[in-house]
Amino acid sequence: MDIFEALHTRRSIRKFTSQGVSDELIEKMLAAAMMAPSAGNQQPWQFILVTDADQKEKIATVHPYVKMVCEAPLAILVCGDLTKEKFAGYWPQDCSAAMENLLLAAHGLGLGAVWTGIYPMEDRIMRFREICSLPEHVIPLGLAIIGWPDHKSVAGERYNPERIHYNRWAAM
Amino acid sequence: MDIFEALHTRRSIRKFTSQGVSDELIEKMLAAAMMAPSAGNQQPWQFILVTDADQKEKIATVHPYVKMVCEAPLAILVCGDLTKEKFAGYWPQDCSAAMENLLLAAHGLGLGAVWTGIYPMEDRIMRFREICSLPEHVIPLGLAIIGWPDHKSVAGERYNPERIHYNRWAAM
Repeated sequence: MDIFEALHTRRSIRKFTSQGVSDELIEKMLAAAMMAPSAGNQQPWQFILVTDADQKEKIATVHPYVKMVCEAPLAILVCGDLTKEKFAGYWPQDCSAAMENLLLAAHGLGLGAVWTGIYPMEDRIMRFREICSLPEHVIPLGLAIIGWPDHKSVAGERYNPERIHYNRWAAM
Repeated sequence: MDIFEALHTRRSIRKFTSQGVSDELIEKMLAAAMMAPSAGNQQPWQFILVTDADQKEKIATVHPYVKMVCEAPLAILVCGDLTKEKFAGYWPQDCSAAMENLLLAAHGLGLGAVWTGIYPMEDRIMRFREICSLPEHVIPLGLAIIGWPDHKSVAGERYNPERIHYNRWAAM
């Protein structure tokens, strides 16, 4: 798939078929995620692959937007590892770039995915910390729920010239 | 360019030829940025295109890592707009995904770019706020410096199996 097609046709997918995702495809998504840029190339990410039914059931109770994890073959928890930071405070940006790469790679493979937010909400962080036994220095950023799409989502354009300013702010 | 080629060969580019970047290509990059996922599809981004030599000279004084802005034809300041947030606290993640899309689009067009960090460092935020006349509700996340690459950067793989854990944290 062409890079511009990927960028313009990726959409959040929340319903999945029962088909599994092979280890080969999982590795391709993780490899793409780890190619993301990061502050000083610090690569502060850690990934928890969730395939276990018990773990998915626990996660489904954390908040309403992650309920569909039980129907998906796979979820990937993207975390920031504070011990890897050379430039303090940049891990959420680095891990967001990794998450976006992961979502684009999933789409490029024909998979569907949705990014569900965790950080900076303290209650969600605490619950994921418990469920996945995360140490204090590992902070969950977001959960990608992934599988083979059970629906098509039409990709409307979002281009909005009102959000573009020249050289300095001009209110629109 | 194939999506996986784009993901795996994108690199930070910091030296540029004197050739300009057409409005058509700028629009392609911004359109890709605005296709990023965001919390509740809130799209909290604003973009300041910097092409003015005076503005670039002022920016170059903010910190050593943005000095090359004077040699680049273009820089794009990616900002979060707090008045667009439906889910408070998620704008840095949304804008980081937009920034990553922008960098991938630049690479897909044959351009080179580097993401230089601003948020959450208060001194940098203040300086960019002054230079670009940003109102209080618009927070600069990072500056993409963009142009035609004057060097090739070899893309080493970053895949690291030690960062992958199964169902729960396991220290490596």
